[in-house]
Amino acid sequence: MVVLVFAHPYPDRSRANRRLLDAVKKLDDVEVRSLYDLYPGFDIDVAAEQAALEKASTIVWQHPTYWYTVPGLMKHWFDKVLLRGWAYGEGGTALRGKRCLWVPTTGGDDVAYTESGMHGRAFESYIPVVEQTAVFCGLRWETPLIVQGVHDLSDEALDAAANNYRARLEALIAADGSSS
Amino acid sequence: MVVLVFAHPYPDRSRANRRLLDAVKKLDDVEVRSLYDLYPGFDIDVAAEQAALEKASTIVWQHPTYWYTVPGLMKHWFDKVLLRGWAYGEGGTALRGKRCLWVPTTGGDDVAYTESGMHGRAFESYIPVVEQTAVFCGLRWETPLIVQGVHDLSDEALDAAANNYRARLEALIAADGSSS
Repeated sequence: MVVLVFAHPYPDRSRANRRLLDAVKKLDDVEVRSLYDLYPGFDIDVAAEQAALEKASTIVWQHPTYWYTVPGLMKHWFDKVLLRGWAYGEGGTALRGKRCLWVPTTGGDDVAYTESGMHGRAFESYIPVVEQTAVFCGLRWETPLIVQGVHDLSDEALDAAANNYRARLEALIAADGSSS
Repeated sequence: MVVLVFAHPYPDRSRANRRLLDAVKKLDDVEVRSLYDLYPGFDIDVAAEQAALEKASTIVWQHPTYWYTVPGLMKHWFDKVLLRGWAYGEGGTALRGKRCLWVPTTGGDDVAYTESGMHGRAFESYIPVVEQTAVFCGLRWETPLIVQGVHDLSDEALDAAANNYRARLEALIAADGSSS
């Protein structure tokens, strides 16, 4: 199954993330954990999070990009949930071999993410922090689904991204089924 | 003056960050804001943080590296404090021209931070997220003071790093004095 960890501080104000989430949340075998709904006071239930992840074959991290990486609560979730002896280090094998799909959206488009653009670098330059977090825990890093320039995306382009997202998750669910 | 934003979730268990902080916190013109002490419930006082930063000529971000970047509360501080219309965007000039010194410590040494090491890449690969956050707000990015491999640093090596840190801040304070 897929455990989809979703972090949007203001889901009601979200257009892109909501539409992406709507495209996948009703799939069989997808459990959505909306961190800002579950933990508005940042009091993460570590045992519950770990138990959810243990059931997963694929873990998804979906969020808007804030300051070039995950929002604060998702970073806090990394700090609190991905513990030594569970996620890494001696005896830390809980996540090993599971797949990880990263689904960040960005406001800026690919022109903004250039050396001369307002974000100074290609988005790829900001990937290592999240990718290595996954890899260090033994997760299998899938090609991220990066949805850029969401402020200016047409409804049609957003629907296409959402359909692509659903297809990616369906393929991962099918791969889980055939390997188990 | 220097506003030193310090983020360590467990300062009592810190050896390296405490020693680094002790070397600079008594300097004239240094105000330490220890985020996990001020905001154990993550309820950041945005107005107080912005008021502190407005007084600063130099802003320091000091913290242990967690999952290749800043701890959760400092990421939340970025999200909450560095607001559009204040830190960037139209009218967002509050930080423009101030200096920013980043002081991360890492547990892993420079061998761990290689392609064949446990952290997969040189530490430099993880810098853009924080550097571009500063640059996007118009801060002047100083060469970071990265203290690597703190788990294995001798007391003497740690003292040398602390002395270097103090010298860096004294130079920045002196530069402030001569330019104001």
